[in-house]
Amino acid sequence: MPDEKSFHMTPEEFRCYGHAVVDWIADYHSRIESFPVLSQVKPGQIRVSLPKVAPEKGERFDAILNDMDKLILPGITHWQSPNFFAYFPCNASGPAILGDLLSSGLGVQGMLWSTSPACTELETHVLDWLVPMLGLPDKFLSSSTGGGVIQDTASSSSLCALLAARERATNYTSNQTGSDGRIVAYASTQTHSSLEKAAMVAGIGVSNLRLIEVDGNFAMRPEALAKQIEADKRAGLLPCFVCATMGTTSSNAMDPIAEIARICRQHNLWLHVDAAMSGTAALCPEFRHLQNGVEFADSYCFNPHKWMFTNFDCDCFWVADRKALIKTLSILPEYLRNQATETGAVIDYRDWHIPLGRRFRSLKLWFVIRHYGIEGLQHHVREHVRLAQQFGDWVRKDERFELAASAPLNLVCFRHKAGDEANQKIMDRLNRSGDLFLTHTKLNGKLTLRLCVGQTNTQERHVVNAWRRICEEAGKLSH
Amino acid sequence: MPDEKSFHMTPEEFRCYGHAVVDWIADYHSRIESFPVLSQVKPGQIRVSLPKVAPEKGERFDAILNDMDKLILPGITHWQSPNFFAYFPCNASGPAILGDLLSSGLGVQGMLWSTSPACTELETHVLDWLVPMLGLPDKFLSSSTGGGVIQDTASSSSLCALLAARERATNYTSNQTGSDGRIVAYASTQTHSSLEKAAMVAGIGVSNLRLIEVDGNFAMRPEALAKQIEADKRAGLLPCFVCATMGTTSSNAMDPIAEIARICRQHNLWLHVDAAMSGTAALCPEFRHLQNGVEFADSYCFNPHKWMFTNFDCDCFWVADRKALIKTLSILPEYLRNQATETGAVIDYRDWHIPLGRRFRSLKLWFVIRHYGIEGLQHHVREHVRLAQQFGDWVRKDERFELAASAPLNLVCFRHKAGDEANQKIMDRLNRSGDLFLTHTKLNGKLTLRLCVGQTNTQERHVVNAWRRICEEAGKLSH
Repeated sequence: MPDEKSFHMTPEEFRCYGHAVVDWIADYHSRIESFPVLSQVKPGQIRVSLPKVAPEKGERFDAILNDMDKLILPGITHWQSPNFFAYFPCNASGPAILGDLLSSGLGVQGMLWSTSPACTELETHVLDWLVPMLGLPDKFLSSSTGGGVIQDTASSSSLCALLAARERATNYTSNQTGSDGRIVAYASTQTHSSLEKAAMVAGIGVSNLRLIEVDGNFAMRPEALAKQIEADKRAGLLPCFVCATMGTTSSNAMDPIAEIARICRQHNLWLHVDAAMSGTAALCPEFRHLQNGVEFADSYCFNPHKWMFTNFDCDCFWVADRKALIKTLSILPEYLRNQATETGAVIDYRDWHIPLGRRFRSLKLWFVIRHYGIEGLQHHVREHVRLAQQFGDWVRKDERFELAASAPLNLVCFRHKAGDEANQKIMDRLNRSGDLFLTHTKLNGKLTLRLCVGQTNTQERHVVNAWRRICEEAGKLSH
Repeated sequence: MPDEKSFHMTPEEFRCYGHAVVDWIADYHSRIESFPVLSQVKPGQIRVSLPKVAPEKGERFDAILNDMDKLILPGITHWQSPNFFAYFPCNASGPAILGDLLSSGLGVQGMLWSTSPACTELETHVLDWLVPMLGLPDKFLSSSTGGGVIQDTASSSSLCALLAARERATNYTSNQTGSDGRIVAYASTQTHSSLEKAAMVAGIGVSNLRLIEVDGNFAMRPEALAKQIEADKRAGLLPCFVCATMGTTSSNAMDPIAEIARICRQHNLWLHVDAAMSGTAALCPEFRHLQNGVEFADSYCFNPHKWMFTNFDCDCFWVADRKALIKTLSILPEYLRNQATETGAVIDYRDWHIPLGRRFRSLKLWFVIRHYGIEGLQHHVREHVRLAQQFGDWVRKDERFELAASAPLNLVCFRHKAGDEANQKIMDRLNRSGDLFLTHTKLNGKLTLRLCVGQTNTQERHVVNAWRRICEEAGKLSH
């Protein structure tokens, strides 16, 4: 097959176009503040610019790259803008992007240890590194009974935790029968919606997921949990799983993990701790009190792709006892059998999550930790918390506004006292202006604005400007 | 916060290090044939070279990059080597890697249309492009009742298809109860193991997944399927889902989709077609007869990350009726509400799969289709099939060997007539030599070697050399 007919990009072309793409990204990040943070296009506006059918003949790479500016950028909501304060962040960094690029370049698929030992071993190693970095219990170490794995998202981790809990409670796999309708799982009314999704997917049913009431700080009430478990047991049901959250999505509430853990031990329930957003804070010893009780967790996850400068997707999930997890997710057809697996001396991560295939995601995490060092990561976490706390102070001191929840870390929930309509108006105007992007929630039935400081490049001036713009829009309300 | 204390990589540093990484990848691909295809390290060998604890201080990027050669490469099984003939391929290409790099650089999270309209609309658009490219039915188009979405793997697609089937059969979400133990799903004894995993995850239970027997070509026997469905109905069970495979993993067997579809229509079962590997062949009209009957499928998936030059992960999943899928996977908490979603004029892909967050994966697929054009993609598919068929001819003509299954496309299953031990020995020696990598399966109880031609850069000389090396090892058997 002569090369001139191969259609492939040669290594030399890759080098040339690759440099152009790297430059495009560097330029994009240099000018990112010039774009409206929230994309201002209308539904369907991107699609109408695209050809109706796929091209018959290949196109030049520079034509494709040009279309990034012309066709794609108008439809981008700039998650990497320092003026992005919406949802939870999905931050990234140079070393993460380059680690991920190497993962794409190597193109290995790490379903088994043998299909690239470095893919498996680096992942195990970096997840072991993180255990002391975050003050997590030793039982999560691969050298103990547990171990860590990278999942795509906390949604998938929650599902896997629930499946492992079902396995332990009912010996599910060996029984080979479906769920029997007796299994009950517990979360709070503020727990992330992915728990509800997980209960539905796993066939446990939403009616068997109990949403426990919360206290004034939107944290789960342990006494309500205990009561519900006891009632369910009396009704002949099988309580098996509790999800406690370190930093809820709506208001960054901190469930009292230690008290919940005590109840779980008493009733032999699986305790999963979802620290998707706020787990990163535990890099700093002064914030670790928020995860008191995590030493009793059966599983735990946090997302470096939210607040630890590692581009999506990268959710780190640990279990204290890997047996239940592997038992419920392991299937070994003949075509995947191999000597290393048979010896039992290796980890095959395909048995630790839903997908079979897997990307070399630990590279980007390794790059981030090495580039920043623990010191650099701590520095930025502290700085984000400082900026959010400062913002909270401005809110507190402005009589037009009120804080809507305590702000333990980098999320501030606040509202204008004039009511839902005023807050909706402020938010819509700010987001339409493109100057910044923030989102809302409802707390105690009231529309509440959320400002989360967690984007990689957010500095004091961006938060100052956000507050200035908020006050400006508040000032226009009377008109 | 002064820049000198920021720890971040500046855009200028990113540019410089980014070029170095691109060059590293170009060099890697230029020298890829110099590495043993299958990594030759022992369990634990990569980990022992890594520091026990994470670094306190950040490190220089060039030190990190140097470790790719020193610490990582020995532990890589080179999936992108043209001498990789194992499993199914996980091929990649220059345009895919660069499209993915742009996705990392933009760092958007496309859970909702509004969180980056281009991420959603380009995905919908490219999946619409693929419908006629692959000769799939119009009902899969987003402009019809259906639509397509990118999932991580075919495992996740199978799970989602099963969940949608459960929804349609039992009105699962509205009932809010768990699975009732009456749902039955069907696959063949040769269907991918992910179906078994999906049945377990969904709480249907392995005992309610019927593995239908296969014919001499390892394809599902429709009459056995019909019989089993009737028996299950008589037993008061609720048959709801069938998975037919276009190209099984073990031997590339083609289930008779049209006949299976007729049975599904008769009994009102959801038909999912898993074309993870062989779906790409349908780019070429002359191979489309293998998917006859796909026009009756309720859902379908294929993996551009296997054979269509798009790096992992990229599984394309279509449904004919998006309502059941969305209904069973949709949960809308307040903090995700937004105007665009409320109007119903947009797709929010978070409702189409398990994870909430999502990467801008359509970029790499768009880049691949535009770079190669339909013509270029067809060229390489045909060439891979031609090379595999030629290899099959060599096997057929060599009296020491036999074909173990028909080879409809680019996978050849074959064995040395001297029995399992001989085949194991040949395979182990070849893989230990590092010259090429192939894997095995069992067909009719006999150990069978599999050679799959699908790596991006595999050319005639690589297949010729593979056969030469196989014959060489066969020649040593008598000694």
